[in-house]
Amino acid sequence: MYTYTHLHAFTKEVFRSIGCSQEHSELASDVLLSADLCGVDSHGIARLTGYYRLWEAKRINATPDIKVIHETPSTAVVDGDSGLGLVVAPFAMEVAMEKARQVGSGWVSVKNTNHFGIAGHHAKMCIPNDMIGIAMTNASPLVAPTFSKEQLLGTNPIAVAIPAGKQPPFVADMATTTAANGKLEILQRKGENAPLGWIQDADGNPTTNAYGVKEGGALLPLGGDREHGSHKGYCLGAIVDIFSAILSGANYGPWVPPFVSFLPVSDNLVGEGIGHFFGAMRIDAFRPADDFKTHMDNWISRFRRAKTIPGKDKVLIPGDPEREMEAERKLNGIPLNEKVIEDIGELAIKTGIAFE
Amino acid sequence: MYTYTHLHAFTKEVFRSIGCSQEHSELASDVLLSADLCGVDSHGIARLTGYYRLWEAKRINATPDIKVIHETPSTAVVDGDSGLGLVVAPFAMEVAMEKARQVGSGWVSVKNTNHFGIAGHHAKMCIPNDMIGIAMTNASPLVAPTFSKEQLLGTNPIAVAIPAGKQPPFVADMATTTAANGKLEILQRKGENAPLGWIQDADGNPTTNAYGVKEGGALLPLGGDREHGSHKGYCLGAIVDIFSAILSGANYGPWVPPFVSFLPVSDNLVGEGIGHFFGAMRIDAFRPADDFKTHMDNWISRFRRAKTIPGKDKVLIPGDPEREMEAERKLNGIPLNEKVIEDIGELAIKTGIAFE
Repeated sequence: MYTYTHLHAFTKEVFRSIGCSQEHSELASDVLLSADLCGVDSHGIARLTGYYRLWEAKRINATPDIKVIHETPSTAVVDGDSGLGLVVAPFAMEVAMEKARQVGSGWVSVKNTNHFGIAGHHAKMCIPNDMIGIAMTNASPLVAPTFSKEQLLGTNPIAVAIPAGKQPPFVADMATTTAANGKLEILQRKGENAPLGWIQDADGNPTTNAYGVKEGGALLPLGGDREHGSHKGYCLGAIVDIFSAILSGANYGPWVPPFVSFLPVSDNLVGEGIGHFFGAMRIDAFRPADDFKTHMDNWISRFRRAKTIPGKDKVLIPGDPEREMEAERKLNGIPLNEKVIEDIGELAIKTGIAFE
Repeated sequence: MYTYTHLHAFTKEVFRSIGCSQEHSELASDVLLSADLCGVDSHGIARLTGYYRLWEAKRINATPDIKVIHETPSTAVVDGDSGLGLVVAPFAMEVAMEKARQVGSGWVSVKNTNHFGIAGHHAKMCIPNDMIGIAMTNASPLVAPTFSKEQLLGTNPIAVAIPAGKQPPFVADMATTTAANGKLEILQRKGENAPLGWIQDADGNPTTNAYGVKEGGALLPLGGDREHGSHKGYCLGAIVDIFSAILSGANYGPWVPPFVSFLPVSDNLVGEGIGHFFGAMRIDAFRPADDFKTHMDNWISRFRRAKTIPGKDKVLIPGDPEREMEAERKLNGIPLNEKVIEDIGELAIKTGIAFE
């Protein structure tokens, strides 16, 4: 078990060592570790070496000039200048929130950026401002659209955070696939098979092989197959791709550059970097915030009271599991798996930053 | 087979007969029949008697005073005054588009309205204006959230329409469930079972009984079960519910009034009518529309060229099947099933409007 403080201090020093400013190093560490805190281990400190290697490959700019390059009162396009998505994303969400303050809502599409950590972190930035927050990003291709043998979309997550009153906020954060890649890694470590509907093999046939994606297959869109609505998951992933990248001028579909530095970037790119999309809507641009929150509390408590199916205790509200995990890990610390500890050890040696 | 003109003329006269204005009758018929044209038979003229019965039950106001009751430069709340959703929705989308013209985007939540036909129709209103259109609505409860035995959400569809250049537009229109209710009706007529993952029975167990929902069970959120991501379908349905109804002051969750007049309205309503939500984003509020369309064409043609899985000819672009159906039905006419012809016959007698 590691304390949040310990992991945060190390992460911040690593970002400092590649030349990020004090402020950016602090922010990037906050965003990255928010994933570890809430249990999304695949998107937290486990990725720190990945960011470092991308910087070594000169695919991340540690001192970006992030700026708005086009705007209207309620919209903007942000150029991330190849910066860490971990700092580009909060910048863009601040732009969206400022527009919401001025004209009721703000919508920002971002190009020339990199992996932004967990989408939910950025959506939740809106909660203390009595706004609804929306965050999405495209990602390198791992997902085959319905009937496709090729990987053409990323896991393209959507997060939506909605304030409540006495209840905690509603926070949905989901890949638009049946299962996220991180779940496959867990199965691989345990030596278990995946359920049908998660993956197809290199020939495009359904498979339970947890290594199916690594062996040339693909993750499947939410729904799994056509009969179970995979065309809807495909639509959602496509919408995220278009809002994030075609509105902004980033790469889309199969052209999105890979996160891992050992895979080459396509030599016929269609845009700059990867793309994100953010939205902020001020609650009182629709109705008084207190009225809204009273009804959100009623919605949440009604759903919590729902009668359950056999074998289940309760109906969850989106955000419940992550919040419970966060409380637990703040108290007891954050576990890291061996592979991550090994990677961090190597990074400590390479950078000369003490880990323990 | 019936011609569009024939069905449209009849539908319009029925709306005239309940007191709708000439303009509203025309518009409501356009919206309703757009579903029949593109093959979504469950949402077209098959519902005309349903609207008529709701009017008889005094749950639809044929002469509504539809108005904006709150607004900022980029947002509004519309009160539909219990009007037909078929006319309230286009009004609200016009408000959203006018705001997009002024400040880049427009977002409108609607209360005190009724069933609005197919969501895709309203989203597509944005296409000729070089805007992205978004339309969603809540609906009476048929869907059980993950682990719930109770029906707490409607099929709550989301539609997103995105302009392209030489390619036809991208139009996604999907219920947030594994399968829409209309598909169950088709199985019932054929005497066939439903695939696992579509429905649960009254005890909350998975079932293949196509009458499972009618017998007290529920439709399942997109994903089908927890292992296949049904919590994501539940999140999507919940977001539609909250954007449509809690932002506006409509009924939400289990309180949404039923479309069918023979089911009573809850006696402890939490809002007014059902709710919709619309968004319009001007493309050139982000980048020049021609640049955007060139990349949309590239996106679409790349996905069309994708290598396919065994047994499938091509990867579809969202909107393809409906567009092909529309071309076919404009040419050859619209088929109606016996039950619908019978219902229309009764309506013709009741209203004195000749059907054939």
